Amino acid sequence: MSLRIGLLGATGLVGRTTLELLEQRDFPAAPTLLASERPRDATLAFRGQRLAVEPVSPEGFRGLDLALFASANGVSEAWAEIARAAGATVIDLSSAFRYHAEVPLVVPEINGALLDARPTLIANPNCSTIAIALALAPLHRAFGLERVAVATYQAVSGGGSEALAELEGGVRAGLEGPPPGRAGGLPAFAFNVVPHIDRFEDNGYTREEMKVVWETRKILAAPDLAVTATAVRVPVRVGHCAAVNARFGRAPSPADARELWSAFPGLRVVDDPARSRYPTPLEAAGGDAVLVGRARRDLSQERALEFFVASDNLRKGAALNAVQIAEHLVRSRVSAP
Amino acid sequence: MSLRIGLLGATGLVGRTTLELLEQRDFPAAPTLLASERPRDATLAFRGQRLAVEPVSPEGFRGLDLALFASANGVSEAWAEIARAAGATVIDLSSAFRYHAEVPLVVPEINGALLDARPTLIANPNCSTIAIALALAPLHRAFGLERVAVATYQAVSGGGSEALAELEGGVRAGLEGPPPGRAGGLPAFAFNVVPHIDRFEDNGYTREEMKVVWETRKILAAPDLAVTATAVRVPVRVGHCAAVNARFGRAPSPADARELWSAFPGLRVVDDPARSRYPTPLEAAGGDAVLVGRARRDLSQERALEFFVASDNLRKGAALNAVQIAEHLVRSRVSAP
Repeated sequence: MSLRIGLLGATGLVGRTTLELLEQRDFPAAPTLLASERPRDATLAFRGQRLAVEPVSPEGFRGLDLALFASANGVSEAWAEIARAAGATVIDLSSAFRYHAEVPLVVPEINGALLDARPTLIANPNCSTIAIALALAPLHRAFGLERVAVATYQAVSGGGSEALAELEGGVRAGLEGPPPGRAGGLPAFAFNVVPHIDRFEDNGYTREEMKVVWETRKILAAPDLAVTATAVRVPVRVGHCAAVNARFGRAPSPADARELWSAFPGLRVVDDPARSRYPTPLEAAGGDAVLVGRARRDLSQERALEFFVASDNLRKGAALNAVQIAEHLVRSRVSAP
Repeated sequence: MSLRIGLLGATGLVGRTTLELLEQRDFPAAPTLLASERPRDATLAFRGQRLAVEPVSPEGFRGLDLALFASANGVSEAWAEIARAAGATVIDLSSAFRYHAEVPLVVPEINGALLDARPTLIANPNCSTIAIALALAPLHRAFGLERVAVATYQAVSGGGSEALAELEGGVRAGLEGPPPGRAGGLPAFAFNVVPHIDRFEDNGYTREEMKVVWETRKILAAPDLAVTATAVRVPVRVGHCAAVNARFGRAPSPADARELWSAFPGLRVVDDPARSRYPTPLEAAGGDAVLVGRARRDLSQERALEFFVASDNLRKGAALNAVQIAEHLVRSRVSAP
């Protein structure tokens, strides 16, 4: 079976990472590359060829089985129905459809079974939430999660290639003098910590923080789960971290947690303080696994753990998770009667 | 009255910051400068003079009224009793004496009244804890603190001038290729996030995390307060931040918190999300105030707030707080009968 895949938003950071993953993994055919704006690079490399990047159009989706949308909300909203009408199943990385009750929000290791119902629109979760939910999932199943509080340490690449260029420029300038602020009066990324990702909501939380709240509940199928979050940008290129505090119905020990994590797909335990081994963004970047470690009993309450996660926000936090959703769909299609 | 002040550890980052503050503030006399190792710079500038830095010796403390110890634990332990025997009141910035029941652990705005008893050894708290405790203190008084959970974002200068040089070198190298790891197999500071400050304890917490636990309780005079912490190094030069989650006996609103903070000395409210105003290390660095903002109701539990603090870890987190203790002692001495 020859599967035809399209990639909208091919020239962005996540789009390029998606293309790399499609190249490295078992997708036989070259994808159709689409972009919402006239791309600067008219072609992108794929297995030794140069693939043309076409401006997105209704015709661009014709004949596609799968369309990965590595696009901003507005672009996803504009094109998802058109792609589905053309017969493509859409895997959308934006947050446009994540909170629609009928749209599954999928981390394949946790709730890949939702794909068996053959949805034609699937939402890929927020970059930080994927890693946090993956570390929580096996603990939740075994011990019953009651409350989660997280503080994130998020890489600047999560803001896209322009944000990353601002970090690079800011760091260079900041080696010689004070790092310059960003456009719009926003504080510098370089040599700074910025507790502001996405826009502010009326409740004082940022949209990024609310994504962690809403999406953790949806992915874990725990609609009443108590969740709070602080989302913070740090001067790192790639690799999101989170300090996670989780309280359970029954008390897991740190050893219980490490055992469950070790057995769960997509997680790698890095937790050997005596050898200074714990999750860091530099270790997570470029890899597929969500790293988890620093497991310890919460000193402030019963039945609770503290731990720390790190993952590549462009890969498992975005492109890899979406490609894994695509792989899951392909497998279930092949194995279907 | 001419007060004689000594400064041990004068050539370190905190020592130099202390000297700057003594220069800028109302201390009439030039301090005696002492160092535990033969200093590279034999003299330091002070109000247009060059002051000699002497190797520490029992004679060095003779005639001093006050001795500020900006030194490592071992040096403080070796010299504190000698300085007191010579008649000096010691303000120690190390953690050597902080947990001794008879040694007051002082943030003047919170518990400066402890200085009225004329202690001759006073401990200056941990850099992160000072800012966190200052933001908690007025809320605790008004609403009764029950539990605190923090995640820190700590500047590399907290590790001293060698750590800061490692950051600078790592950032330069990291602009061209992967940032090199540090000596001893430790992960790079540059473009990275490192959940490891000070040594690991048997309970899986770092010593730095336990300092937040122990010292918050001692400063707030709340020995049974439930506290947990994750302490993390980020690639920032100066300025520690913390995401603080605090639960109270009675529920404060975010507006209550801002009002209490505005009225409390040492704090400055920076909390205007609509204008992208919140605490950052770059804004805190070089200033005296602990910045506090991002106040919002915790979505995950009743009677709780989330907020974010930033402060200059070399100033209010260390040198400034110690100098304020000295000023308090001077005032109470002058006003004493």
